[in-house]
Amino acid sequence: MARVLVLHGPNLNLLGTRDPAVYGTTTLAEIDRELVVRAKARGASLRSAQTNIEGELVDLIQGARGRADGLVINPGGYTHTSVAIRDAIEAVGLPTVEVHLSNIHAREEFRHTSLTAAKCIGQICGFGAQSYYLGLDAVLARVEATRADGYPRKTGQRR
Amino acid sequence: MARVLVLHGPNLNLLGTRDPAVYGTTTLAEIDRELVVRAKARGASLRSAQTNIEGELVDLIQGARGRADGLVINPGGYTHTSVAIRDAIEAVGLPTVEVHLSNIHAREEFRHTSLTAAKCIGQICGFGAQSYYLGLDAVLARVEATRADGYPRKTGQRR
Amino acid sequence: MARVLVLHGPNLNLLGTRDPAVYGTTTLAEIDRELVVRAKARGASLRSAQTNIEGELVDLIQGARGRADGLVINPGGYTHTSVAIRDAIEAVGLPTVEVHLSNIHAREEFRHTSLTAAKCIGQICGFGAQSYYLGLDAVLARVEATRADGYPRKTGQRR
Amino acid sequence: MARVLVLHGPNLNLLGTRDPAVYGTTTLAEIDRELVVRAKARGASLRSAQTNIEGELVDLIQGARGRADGLVINPGGYTHTSVAIRDAIEAVGLPTVEVHLSNIHAREEFRHTSLTAAKCIGQICGFGAQSYYLGLDAVLARVEATRADGYPRKTGQRR
Amino acid sequence: MARVLVLHGPNLNLLGTRDPAVYGTTTLAEIDRELVVRAKARGASLRSAQTNIEGELVDLIQGARGRADGLVINPGGYTHTSVAIRDAIEAVGLPTVEVHLSNIHAREEFRHTSLTAAKCIGQICGFGAQSYYLGLDAVLARVEATRADGYPRKTGQRR
Amino acid sequence: MARVLVLHGPNLNLLGTRDPAVYGTTTLAEIDRELVVRAKARGASLRSAQTNIEGELVDLIQGARGRADGLVINPGGYTHTSVAIRDAIEAVGLPTVEVHLSNIHAREEFRHTSLTAAKCIGQICGFGAQSYYLGLDAVLARVEATRADGYPRKTGQRR
Amino acid sequence: MARVLVLHGPNLNLLGTRDPAVYGTTTLAEIDRELVVRAKARGASLRSAQTNIEGELVDLIQGARGRADGLVINPGGYTHTSVAIRDAIEAVGLPTVEVHLSNIHAREEFRHTSLTAAKCIGQICGFGAQSYYLGLDAVLARVEATRADGYPRKTGQRR
Amino acid sequence: MARVLVLHGPNLNLLGTRDPAVYGTTTLAEIDRELVVRAKARGASLRSAQTNIEGELVDLIQGARGRADGLVINPGGYTHTSVAIRDAIEAVGLPTVEVHLSNIHAREEFRHTSLTAAKCIGQICGFGAQSYYLGLDAVLARVEATRADGYPRKTGQRR
Amino acid sequence: MARVLVLHGPNLNLLGTRDPAVYGTTTLAEIDRELVVRAKARGASLRSAQTNIEGELVDLIQGARGRADGLVINPGGYTHTSVAIRDAIEAVGLPTVEVHLSNIHAREEFRHTSLTAAKCIGQICGFGAQSYYLGLDAVLARVEATRADGYPRKTGQRR
Amino acid sequence: MARVLVLHGPNLNLLGTRDPAVYGTTTLAEIDRELVVRAKARGASLRSAQTNIEGELVDLIQGARGRADGLVINPGGYTHTSVAIRDAIEAVGLPTVEVHLSNIHAREEFRHTSLTAAKCIGQICGFGAQSYYLGLDAVLARVEATRADGYPRKTGQRR
Amino acid sequence: MARVLVLHGPNLNLLGTRDPAVYGTTTLAEIDRELVVRAKARGASLRSAQTNIEGELVDLIQGARGRADGLVINPGGYTHTSVAIRDAIEAVGLPTVEVHLSNIHAREEFRHTSLTAAKCIGQICGFGAQSYYLGLDAVLARVEATRADGYPRKTGQRR
Amino acid sequence: MARVLVLHGPNLNLLGTRDPAVYGTTTLAEIDRELVVRAKARGASLRSAQTNIEGELVDLIQGARGRADGLVINPGGYTHTSVAIRDAIEAVGLPTVEVHLSNIHAREEFRHTSLTAAKCIGQICGFGAQSYYLGLDAVLARVEATRADGYPRKTGQRR
Repeated sequence: MARVLVLHGPNLNLLGTRDPAVYGTTTLAEIDRELVVRAKARGASLRSAQTNIEGELVDLIQGARGRADGLVINPGGYTHTSVAIRDAIEAVGLPTVEVHLSNIHAREEFRHTSLTAAKCIGQICGFGAQSYYLGLDAVLARVEATRADGYPRKTGQRR
Repeated sequence: MARVLVLHGPNLNLLGTRDPAVYGTTTLAEIDRELVVRAKARGASLRSAQTNIEGELVDLIQGARGRADGLVINPGGYTHTSVAIRDAIEAVGLPTVEVHLSNIHAREEFRHTSLTAAKCIGQICGFGAQSYYLGLDAVLARVEATRADGYPRKTGQRR
Repeated sequence: MARVLVLHGPNLNLLGTRDPAVYGTTTLAEIDRELVVRAKARGASLRSAQTNIEGELVDLIQGARGRADGLVINPGGYTHTSVAIRDAIEAVGLPTVEVHLSNIHAREEFRHTSLTAAKCIGQICGFGAQSYYLGLDAVLARVEATRADGYPRKTGQRR
Repeated sequence: MARVLVLHGPNLNLLGTRDPAVYGTTTLAEIDRELVVRAKARGASLRSAQTNIEGELVDLIQGARGRADGLVINPGGYTHTSVAIRDAIEAVGLPTVEVHLSNIHAREEFRHTSLTAAKCIGQICGFGAQSYYLGLDAVLARVEATRADGYPRKTGQRR
Repeated sequence: MARVLVLHGPNLNLLGTRDPAVYGTTTLAEIDRELVVRAKARGASLRSAQTNIEGELVDLIQGARGRADGLVINPGGYTHTSVAIRDAIEAVGLPTVEVHLSNIHAREEFRHTSLTAAKCIGQICGFGAQSYYLGLDAVLARVEATRADGYPRKTGQRR
Repeated sequence: MARVLVLHGPNLNLLGTRDPAVYGTTTLAEIDRELVVRAKARGASLRSAQTNIEGELVDLIQGARGRADGLVINPGGYTHTSVAIRDAIEAVGLPTVEVHLSNIHAREEFRHTSLTAAKCIGQICGFGAQSYYLGLDAVLARVEATRADGYPRKTGQRR
Repeated sequence: MARVLVLHGPNLNLLGTRDPAVYGTTTLAEIDRELVVRAKARGASLRSAQTNIEGELVDLIQGARGRADGLVINPGGYTHTSVAIRDAIEAVGLPTVEVHLSNIHAREEFRHTSLTAAKCIGQICGFGAQSYYLGLDAVLARVEATRADGYPRKTGQRR
Repeated sequence: MARVLVLHGPNLNLLGTRDPAVYGTTTLAEIDRELVVRAKARGASLRSAQTNIEGELVDLIQGARGRADGLVINPGGYTHTSVAIRDAIEAVGLPTVEVHLSNIHAREEFRHTSLTAAKCIGQICGFGAQSYYLGLDAVLARVEATRADGYPRKTGQRR
Repeated sequence: MARVLVLHGPNLNLLGTRDPAVYGTTTLAEIDRELVVRAKARGASLRSAQTNIEGELVDLIQGARGRADGLVINPGGYTHTSVAIRDAIEAVGLPTVEVHLSNIHAREEFRHTSLTAAKCIGQICGFGAQSYYLGLDAVLARVEATRADGYPRKTGQRR
Repeated sequence: MARVLVLHGPNLNLLGTRDPAVYGTTTLAEIDRELVVRAKARGASLRSAQTNIEGELVDLIQGARGRADGLVINPGGYTHTSVAIRDAIEAVGLPTVEVHLSNIHAREEFRHTSLTAAKCIGQICGFGAQSYYLGLDAVLARVEATRADGYPRKTGQRR
Repeated sequence: MARVLVLHGPNLNLLGTRDPAVYGTTTLAEIDRELVVRAKARGASLRSAQTNIEGELVDLIQGARGRADGLVINPGGYTHTSVAIRDAIEAVGLPTVEVHLSNIHAREEFRHTSLTAAKCIGQICGFGAQSYYLGLDAVLARVEATRADGYPRKTGQRR
Repeated sequence: MARVLVLHGPNLNLLGTRDPAVYGTTTLAEIDRELVVRAKARGASLRSAQTNIEGELVDLIQGARGRADGLVINPGGYTHTSVAIRDAIEAVGLPTVEVHLSNIHAREEFRHTSLTAAKCIGQICGFGAQSYYLGLDAVLARVEATRADGYPRKTGQRR
């Protein structure tokens, strides 16, 4: 059974508890529950965690070694500057998908690039909660393909 | 019934016909067939087109007005420099999802940003043929949400 | 009788057919008719063409040699990046006026400069359809001045 | 009766008094006279002023409130660096057209952008004295359109 | 009674305990006590906290929702690079004043800009401990004005 | 008795006389009167001046030598480019506080840095008229501290 | 028999038909004829094509697969910005030589670099029509060396 | 007896536990043990700590005051962006040596510079575990030289 | 008899009246007197003027036409940004030498380049008051050489 | 008889003596011999020289005046930074062709531009030893064309 | 017996002969003697050379082939710009350690990066004469490790 | 008796021997003779040297210690990139004046700044041979002032 770890970065804990007229009323807990349901439907297990601290994201990524087969990560504000998260994703070597609620290409210029995505399989941004669901699909597809092959494919590897 | 148009930019016609050991043997025609099947399964119709010419992509985007409810586009090499495609997506106003086979954040620096994605709902990159399938899911979700609402949401709009 | 060619670049064909509350209801065809009327009133003839394809703009500029005495061009999204159009304007050597509907200096930063304008007599931007009418005035004045002189003045030449 | 104020920035007072073989013999006074004639022909009044001092251009723009319905300004060398003139045009809110004798896109790179034009309706450059005449046409068209509408349109507003 | 939270970022805990000849002998505890006294004198309550960890500043900002009416923050070295703190200030929406002991414009070039200040009401820098006292005045003035109005003004909003 | 000179740069004379719904109805004269009252309450005298001309700001700063003990300056649009004002503040050596009505960090990118603030004690921005009142507090605190010390502290000096 | 395809980009069709005093009277047709003669003399066949359209250059490069053993390409104005042509050269994998009539290093700064040359064997610029003849020599040498080896060498490969 | 504190930044805890064929089998614990042995051999004591959290590195540096005579630090991914660590090293004022396992000049361009090294005595990079041993030699030499002198030399001071 | 005009820009009027221990006690008036003496010794007349206002420097340069044969100018803080002064020097066409008291290459980076010097014969910087005396020698040498030739050499002309 | 001088810059003396499996076994001496043979076959004489010292390349270029009719130069690592070699080529005025063994556009970004090529007729890169042979053809063609004309064409001159 | 060559670049010959109060009295000869002693103690031989000429450093590096087993190099002022030295280190392929007396990260910004270090094993900077001694340790460790392995490791290779 | 050393960098040996119509017929030898005469007239001795080699300029500057009291240097093409010459001037500490024949501010952009001038007293450019004569005046004035003072002033020191 494939095991997926979903990591939420800074400020994502506020989701759905503020300005519901603008951001909707979906909370992070609801997204996490939906992810569990969807993972289960595909025969996978899923855990998730949130932290506002960059280094704790590094801890969580490292902790996934041997406990997860794939990662979905939304590094939030650390996306654009965190060499530490980039290095952790590369070092741990699990297939990782980066997701963002908003379309980073349509926001301030400093959000247009991602330092962390370079070490992921790919990136999905702009679809709100659905970004996570698509990310789950993507990482499970990779985990399953790897298993079918019988040998792992490294994260960040060009197809 | 939701109608989706899938547009493939320059060099994507070569997919699957070259270096199968490296790039796999899936051809663009096969991806298009798979997309039709998946759309149909969700009660939608889907057409697709490929061109190497920037201005023909503009023509195709414009031509979608009134004939499609959503777009999936892989602008290929025009992603990073085409103001004309960016303007066309904005002018036509259909919900649009940008997709890329490879992870643009893991390639040459000039590929790290997208001029066209700013006017799309979001972007999906790095998952090979699956990028298209995820993109189809994303655009259909938006089209269906819009219909449920009873009023259209403009492309590029922050959620 | 002075002959003027008016060239419209990408997406200008959509003018007036979309969001009339925002952009007005004047279509490109109406602008072209008005231009013909105004040219005629000054004893000149005028033809116009639109294309979304960069290289066809090059074709049209080249085709003006011997068939037109002056050009009015709105290169649209190609304004900021097209070395090919810049080279065509320089090579053909006809007096050329660059026009834009919107004020390029008040939009995204990548629109603030023009690669093509350097090889034109000058540039007019920000006045909607009137940008074309002012551009026609400007190019006819140059053509007439040249004829009065008895020798041609090259485009791009500082006054 | 529409009232137009024309403002000439630094070094424009030298026009026509130096190197007539190169720059022609038209003086600034002659341009101003021609502008008055043209304004009158369109049922408008026109005054003009020249100064080499950036802050005096700010004074003159501010002084136009209540005394003019539209501005034509050639900020000369201050075009590329003056936040103060930019702010004055925005603060006063009169429809303003920026003009230049030479084609700024064909000169030194530091002249390719305009800080002040962002707060104008639009910009006209490259046509010598005719830039002013076209600018007068443009600003009168805007003033007249505003009057026909019955409500003012702010300067800098995208059409 | 208005409630103010004062947040001190990295290295501010060292204040006054080192090189008293150079930096003075005022400790952070003394500044905090003085802030309490001053807040009380204006009928407000004040709490403060210090941490060297970026994500804990995010935690503290988030925790202020419902427990404080305004924030004074010195993000220290995170001022220039922290998207996470910027996002937290924006998300929480409390009126926030950024303060710095030293004049950031007179130090190394990388300190001249602030990523976090864009989402604050304003910024005060260069006055040593007094920067905090001025910041307290500024945030209380905004909180009181908001109460007088009867409706909240969002942080970051231009006056 | 401490003497303070308050200098207002370009366009500040328009304050309160335009768009009261947006900018409020406080005029510059009212701010100046309030500053006099506040200075008097602290046993100080205060004069103020406004000019749109960069060089006149230099004149006024130079003229403060021997006639004022501290400066509060809002250099307006000259903040970001004026080497001359920067040099004048440094040369005259009076304690100087830079103030701005709006939050420069939340506006166009060219406003994010200040060339003049490097030679001031510090900078206060974003609090509307209150920026001036806080600036007065800050400069008086410095003047009084200097007097208590018995020797002057140079402006721009790191604390 | 080695087969060579020569591709001419935008504006090269004007060669020799304009300003013969400056650019000489050699037309593109004459260059093509000379190339055929020279290829024949080395036992090779040669075809050529010209287009002003970027995407048609992509089409032509793709079409060379299986029909040519080597390419000589002058991408003209597309040299400096075309990711699509760069990708096509890389995808098709034929040995390719980039040529330019003029010395790109002695012209405007935006012409000093080539995006397309990175995927070619090498580049030849500055020798007028001779650039093509040298390019033919270079590509034939590579094709012949490859044949002598018995296995192909990929284009873009460092020697 | 000289006391040295060795600090390991993010991801260094993974050393030696992953891909032994590539990175060798030396773990961080083994490096720490070797460092203790080497320190002892020179009559010094040595402690070490690792954390993935930027602010905890700041805590650890601050905590070294009065408990260590010199620091060896490998800030890992925080090397290139951490103003907080830079400020902590400067504030604490202990002689500090920055070390890196890999040669930062031979990796991605964003790793070529160090923000933190400017406040250290010097930097050693590229020698794997040996970088730490050389760093220990360097910091002990400084500590011993300082003691011989009888007065401390500040870190960051040019020799 | 050759006539020289010496122009002093912003803040130069403070020379010698402040911090004599640092800057010496030579006043601008003394430099002007010395310049008159030196000019006279070479059979030339010399006048000088100082202003803090950029546009007045433009006025003074323009006013030199027909009244001076050469200029020595210290544009002070306007050196690095003034297009208006650059244009005035070019328009007036008198041989002009730019001088600076301090070595601009040894100060802040924004002082390393001169926008105005490009239109002068040359530049002299770093020699205190002597920079003016050397500048006088240089401009007189040019004026005399021109007279010996019998025809004027334009300023800015490469030798 | 045309005389050609071939100059080899730094590290080219190592050619063919190291890693023959990678770089081939052709030595610089063999290239030089082949060049002599080819020159002779075209009725020209040829000498060559190698040095690792930038200034000796300048000496050699200068020494070619009167002793050679054309130059072929591979400035090696000095290509990208040497103003001195650029100036020497311009000063001596002999027709010069720049050659490189490798394709500079496919290597590190700092190798993509050439400072020296701007003063040459053109540049040839990427063809290994053949770059020299093509360079010889190019320079002889220019020398012969010049002789046929009866007047010299300057190096660097656009065709 | 391992053979080490130590190369000193420009201005290092002045060491210890100037301003002894500031730079100490250790001369380069004394450093060289100490290096010989230390090498000998480790059973290695050591030679050293100094030159101010970039190309002679290239000569010396090349000359080390077959005569040395490892290099220690201080390229001085050539560190930041020399492609030729970078290429020589790469071409010769000996394990090389770059050393600097001062901490390049604490000096002018143009010294913060090294072009040459990318092709070395690593870099040591900031420790005065000790930088050389640490560099000797580092290069000998690599040479000895290589010998123990029985196969050479290339310089620049990531560990 | 003051001793001056004049150093001429690359390509200055060509002066006066080429294109006399353009550059005049004054040779470097003639300039050197004139410098000797002028030095003698001021009671000073003068020697001069020319080299095309950067490192030999370093040698010559170093050799001036104890043999000259001041330097005049024209570093030619090395002005803009030579850290080695900059360091040599700083290390030797003799008063040094940088001179250039042409106006570096009126040429290519890469010539607008000088790396070497930062360590000189000042710079003189644009006056042809007269730049040297003015440079001699400047350096002698500094040497004489130093002697009158009785203590040396360091080069590069701000006045």
